[in-house]
Amino acid sequence: MNASIKIISARWVVPVVPRNTVLENHAVVVENGIIIDLLDTQSALEKYQSAEHINRESHALIPGLINAHTHAAMSLFRGIADDVPLMEWLEGHIWPAEAKWVNPDFMRDGAQLAIAEMLMSGTTCFNDMYFHSDTVARVAQDMGIRAFVGMIVLDFPSTWAANADEYFDKGMRVHDEVRALSRVNTTMAPHAPYTVSDASLATARTYADELQIPIHMHVHETADEVTSALETNGVRPLARLHQLGLLNPRMMAVHMTQLTDDEITLSAEQGIHVVHCPESNLKLASGQCPVADLLRAGTNVCLGTDSASSNNDLDMLGEMRTACLIAKTTANDARALPAWQALEMATINGATALNVQNEIGSLEIGKSADMVALDLNHLSTQPVYNPISQIVYSASREQISDVWIEGKARVSNKQLQNVDVQQILSNAALWGERLSNHD
Amino acid sequence: MNASIKIISARWVVPVVPRNTVLENHAVVVENGIIIDLLDTQSALEKYQSAEHINRESHALIPGLINAHTHAAMSLFRGIADDVPLMEWLEGHIWPAEAKWVNPDFMRDGAQLAIAEMLMSGTTCFNDMYFHSDTVARVAQDMGIRAFVGMIVLDFPSTWAANADEYFDKGMRVHDEVRALSRVNTTMAPHAPYTVSDASLATARTYADELQIPIHMHVHETADEVTSALETNGVRPLARLHQLGLLNPRMMAVHMTQLTDDEITLSAEQGIHVVHCPESNLKLASGQCPVADLLRAGTNVCLGTDSASSNNDLDMLGEMRTACLIAKTTANDARALPAWQALEMATINGATALNVQNEIGSLEIGKSADMVALDLNHLSTQPVYNPISQIVYSASREQISDVWIEGKARVSNKQLQNVDVQQILSNAALWGERLSNHD
Repeated sequence: MNASIKIISARWVVPVVPRNTVLENHAVVVENGIIIDLLDTQSALEKYQSAEHINRESHALIPGLINAHTHAAMSLFRGIADDVPLMEWLEGHIWPAEAKWVNPDFMRDGAQLAIAEMLMSGTTCFNDMYFHSDTVARVAQDMGIRAFVGMIVLDFPSTWAANADEYFDKGMRVHDEVRALSRVNTTMAPHAPYTVSDASLATARTYADELQIPIHMHVHETADEVTSALETNGVRPLARLHQLGLLNPRMMAVHMTQLTDDEITLSAEQGIHVVHCPESNLKLASGQCPVADLLRAGTNVCLGTDSASSNNDLDMLGEMRTACLIAKTTANDARALPAWQALEMATINGATALNVQNEIGSLEIGKSADMVALDLNHLSTQPVYNPISQIVYSASREQISDVWIEGKARVSNKQLQNVDVQQILSNAALWGERLSNHD
Repeated sequence: MNASIKIISARWVVPVVPRNTVLENHAVVVENGIIIDLLDTQSALEKYQSAEHINRESHALIPGLINAHTHAAMSLFRGIADDVPLMEWLEGHIWPAEAKWVNPDFMRDGAQLAIAEMLMSGTTCFNDMYFHSDTVARVAQDMGIRAFVGMIVLDFPSTWAANADEYFDKGMRVHDEVRALSRVNTTMAPHAPYTVSDASLATARTYADELQIPIHMHVHETADEVTSALETNGVRPLARLHQLGLLNPRMMAVHMTQLTDDEITLSAEQGIHVVHCPESNLKLASGQCPVADLLRAGTNVCLGTDSASSNNDLDMLGEMRTACLIAKTTANDARALPAWQALEMATINGATALNVQNEIGSLEIGKSADMVALDLNHLSTQPVYNPISQIVYSASREQISDVWIEGKARVSNKQLQNVDVQQILSNAALWGERLSNHD
């Protein structure tokens, strides 16, 4: 047996590229963490006779999900302040709690909780923005998930940095440190137009260009943001970013709930990427991103959960489903955002935004074996007329049996591998008690 | 040991009545299927020393969920036609498939699949509208769930009946048959204003009054329904129902996505019940029910999944979450429909609409022990600042460990009791193959 080659076969393989395709009784062949073949299972067994064979006979195999916007460690704030709007939530609850509690221990325990939850729900790569990103980077590398950690920039002090210069300095130190980690990269992460000055935005753009990394930023999250910016700057935030040269294919603009037709055209023309976070936008009543219009205009739209404290989970299966459901109402068209397109948003589109579309985001020869197997022989997904529809509209995280990253099983038989789940839960509960008793 | 008395204790008990209440380390005491006490666990153990003690130490105990609108057997059509609007979905896909396939065998296998899915996701009572309701009634009774089966009325023929008279005749036969079943009741179920004539609606009203049962009806599901009715009848459907005397506390009006301010006032004044089905309305781009406005006006609003073919699951936990998320956007207010109010909609409000609010819908002394335990010590629900928030916003069906109906465990240790799940799944898969190959 050639133990270095693995055949992973499934009842259905959904490679995402080519578009809206379901391959029945197919197999992905993996060597050294890379997909070296994709063919029908019978042929795979004949061609790779000495390979190890893992068969998932009632399952669908899909690319690992890419969570294109989150603040992982905020999982420890999950449910601390629900049913309030964005600015009240930030100013009355989250920012004070962050000032009091966020430190490297909090970040480590929060990131572990979040990454465990993400792995269990099929996420193999996440794009993070928060403080102490060095800690998040190390936890991600240890737990085997891919991560992009943002070099956050704000114009006000936090537990992480005192001013813009220190944010940049600390960000660059994280960037240097992360070079040693095989699964972690950085983004430049100016927080939002309303929290970062023109000067800092210009600096962020320069760094992003030099380092050739994405820019990860909240943009047009609420109507209030746009109204306030008009009063302060005389222009809408997107126009200001355009003037500063930030609307280019490095830009991952998160939320984008307030867009005129001209701004939709501009976004497509400039080649920016939009990160849609439907559940967070719904929960904070921020408005909804016009996903169908953006996609029609040719913009790359990907999907994120935002943090667990405004969602309140990190489940990309649920996020795909909500994205489809709300897109139809936003567009007033039940045909808007069909299931297969939501799966693209959660996989290849996220990879494209992060500029790693040649490495992950689809099951194609030459790409990394980042994959998820879901068992569709379940009370909530039978019968199966269309596996993609069942995955997006009916499946839940409990049906995920396996998650592989670089061909290595991180979830197997519905269990996290080499992770002490009880310890993570105990740590989280302890933070919950601390914050409840002293907030 | 007094085996006839059971103490079921939990870390948190959420009785729903009184409103928005969390009791820590409390116990429900059950005898002969009835809740005979509700007190702190320590006192319960002292007071009922010989009782059996079931302890759920990291769980929340809530009333069984009430799915106030579904078409259970349509689970066999799950995913057969997604991403299309209501009338195309009905006329192009569902009605032809029903004409060809719906028979008592289909109904039995479909109802078994649906009821198994509902029990596993914490539903202990469902309100059904479909053909062959005698079959659904028997399956429900056998599987131990509570059901209300609709005596459906249409003005066009189906596999169930040829004309209005036959619908009423067959409905009455089902009503008589159901008297022998302890957990099943009936409703009068004229399908919708656009499928039932004035004469049949008047007859339905008479029967409902005589039998003292609810009227279960789709009303104002889409804007097209209202526009067409204005053209045909000169009045909006709700006004027509009012003229016919159907707007009274027996009426469960399902969907109600198109409501003027006057209609919201009228609904409250007449004491009708509104059944909100947010996921189905989103998926079919039908519009959204103004839940916050209705509740503010004093209308009783409950929650349903609609069928699995327009949802695409029968998961009331997910439905509560979607209800909260979308209500905030519909009302443009993040405070609209807080988590505790969605839990009311899914429990006591459903019981009130079905006129069984003295028997089920909350954990109160004298009511039936219909209860659900969810384990909150889970990667998706830690830390726990507010158990109700975690249940509604973060928990998923996999966290349900136990479901009791009349004090009898129907789900225990996350397993359905006395149900052959593999057989149900095989039957469903077989129907899937039949319909795929011959549709």
